Amino acid sequence: MAANMSRKEILGKVYKMIPPMLEKFHKGQLGRVAVIGGSEDYTGAPYFSAMASAKLGADMSHVICEPGAGMVIKTYSPNLMVHPYMRQEKNLAKNETIDSISDEVVAMLDRLHVVVIGPGLGRDPAMQETCARVITEARKKNVSFVLDADGLYLAQTRPELVNGYKECILTPNVVEFGRLAKSQNIDTTKEDPTKLCEKLANAYGGVTIIQKGAVDYISNGKQTLVSTGEGGLKRAGGQGDTLTGSLATLLAYRKAYLEKIWDHENDMGADELLTLCAYGGSAITRECSRLAFKEKGRSLQAADLTEHVHTAFLDLIGEKPTDESKL
Amino acid sequence: MAANMSRKEILGKVYKMIPPMLEKFHKGQLGRVAVIGGSEDYTGAPYFSAMASAKLGADMSHVICEPGAGMVIKTYSPNLMVHPYMRQEKNLAKNETIDSISDEVVAMLDRLHVVVIGPGLGRDPAMQETCARVITEARKKNVSFVLDADGLYLAQTRPELVNGYKECILTPNVVEFGRLAKSQNIDTTKEDPTKLCEKLANAYGGVTIIQKGAVDYISNGKQTLVSTGEGGLKRAGGQGDTLTGSLATLLAYRKAYLEKIWDHENDMGADELLTLCAYGGSAITRECSRLAFKEKGRSLQAADLTEHVHTAFLDLIGEKPTDESKL
Repeated sequence: MAANMSRKEILGKVYKMIPPMLEKFHKGQLGRVAVIGGSEDYTGAPYFSAMASAKLGADMSHVICEPGAGMVIKTYSPNLMVHPYMRQEKNLAKNETIDSISDEVVAMLDRLHVVVIGPGLGRDPAMQETCARVITEARKKNVSFVLDADGLYLAQTRPELVNGYKECILTPNVVEFGRLAKSQNIDTTKEDPTKLCEKLANAYGGVTIIQKGAVDYISNGKQTLVSTGEGGLKRAGGQGDTLTGSLATLLAYRKAYLEKIWDHENDMGADELLTLCAYGGSAITRECSRLAFKEKGRSLQAADLTEHVHTAFLDLIGEKPTDESKL
Repeated sequence: MAANMSRKEILGKVYKMIPPMLEKFHKGQLGRVAVIGGSEDYTGAPYFSAMASAKLGADMSHVICEPGAGMVIKTYSPNLMVHPYMRQEKNLAKNETIDSISDEVVAMLDRLHVVVIGPGLGRDPAMQETCARVITEARKKNVSFVLDADGLYLAQTRPELVNGYKECILTPNVVEFGRLAKSQNIDTTKEDPTKLCEKLANAYGGVTIIQKGAVDYISNGKQTLVSTGEGGLKRAGGQGDTLTGSLATLLAYRKAYLEKIWDHENDMGADELLTLCAYGGSAITRECSRLAFKEKGRSLQAADLTEHVHTAFLDLIGEKPTDESKL
């Protein structure tokens, strides 16, 4: 991908990656994704993430969370499948161990294209350890994953979990980016700010990072894109969850492209497509934020972004013909 | 019913079966249905099914489910009656047995015209065994039932439960159909695909099967109809639940027709009416999917179908006069 490509050209490439909606497809082919997160303190984040994935077109959106959180998340929408398999340490029952909990979550991986790890996860040791094991198994099975929020704490404290894995995206905000950089001995005050994302991506052996901010830097260490689309000005919590859910669906679409489930030119490779997913997710989320802010101003809340995911997709990327002969 | 009837002619016959809404009727006469399903992992499916039954006109729509699922489903809508009678094996209390649980569910059958078994049921052995007993009792009491999702697992593993029962409809999708066919030693790769549904219906002794797909095949082994109405192109999970709920109400209407609760020509028999229910349910669901997809495109979720059930009914089948003298 040329380094000087315009936003329009990059989004044009994202368009090429998007699977059309064809009569011949069956349930699940356009995305089976799961968000792992949702704990005693947080129920909104995994909901926003899973809903964004569904609104962007995933056929099946799951949430895997702690039971109390699960009861609540289920009430937010009957459209999500919510599995109460996670446990905070204090709530482990007598016959439950991290092994038994992890086994139940890991068993779902074979049915999933992508896992988002972190929204509303918290730092409970049992929850963190379960996610560490899910990551380890996801790598073995070549399942893509996105790390955000307290999922990034794993990349900070146990970098070997993500080091060198090309099928993952990290989405730190400014605070989280600072912590990750510090853990990799990168002094953010001494480096060119436009090169920091590239540097951190390289420190992690070439994983893809979206450094969220006034503009989003996206880098896999070799190539860096800057996502500059106008966003909203309200810094309400939870907007990053629309990003992770959007990324999940785009990563599932990338798999569909790579598996050639429809007829296409096949002129984009796995690495380029991963960067396109990151850019596409960033662009869609910024547009959701802009549209929601235009409507709600200062009163904007995270759920307002959810309502704009499909519009943002249509405006920025566009829908494909449903007639195979016209593709 | 003539084999070469047009869609319009078949839907015209469905219209004849639909009870008018007359002043003289009292609560319950136009449909008392229940959905058995709803477990730790799934709450959306039984909700979509029960809501479709209500939106198509059933007077009373019940859900019978596991207590945790019940708490959630109750929050989705105050219009449904949700009975937390089912138990997953691990949640059986000391004074509870499969006998005591089944007795409580079976006791409801006398008040019901139709039972849908399977949406969000799961494969828990206690839940499955309870449903097996409900099926056995429903057959004795001549209560109609619909099997879908994990309810179909019973037809697969214990075919004697459904064999030869003319008051039930099975609604497998492509994967479920494959499993049922395999359990009946039918090789789906070697048969004419347009004859598979008929073949499976005969293997089950003449039960009615709706084989869901790009078109829906409907067969009782003697007669096969093809439901070809345009549907949506999003393969989101949960759309099949609108079908089972619609079938429940149509099967209740069929009973009203057979019991002659209003004055009509009485020129359609029980078998023909069952096929008409299957066709009507398929047509309504496909139309809901088409309307929802037109509105929501790629962002369609199962709940979007629920909103179109009444419109689909009015468009495809049509309402009857409420004045008995004009019928």
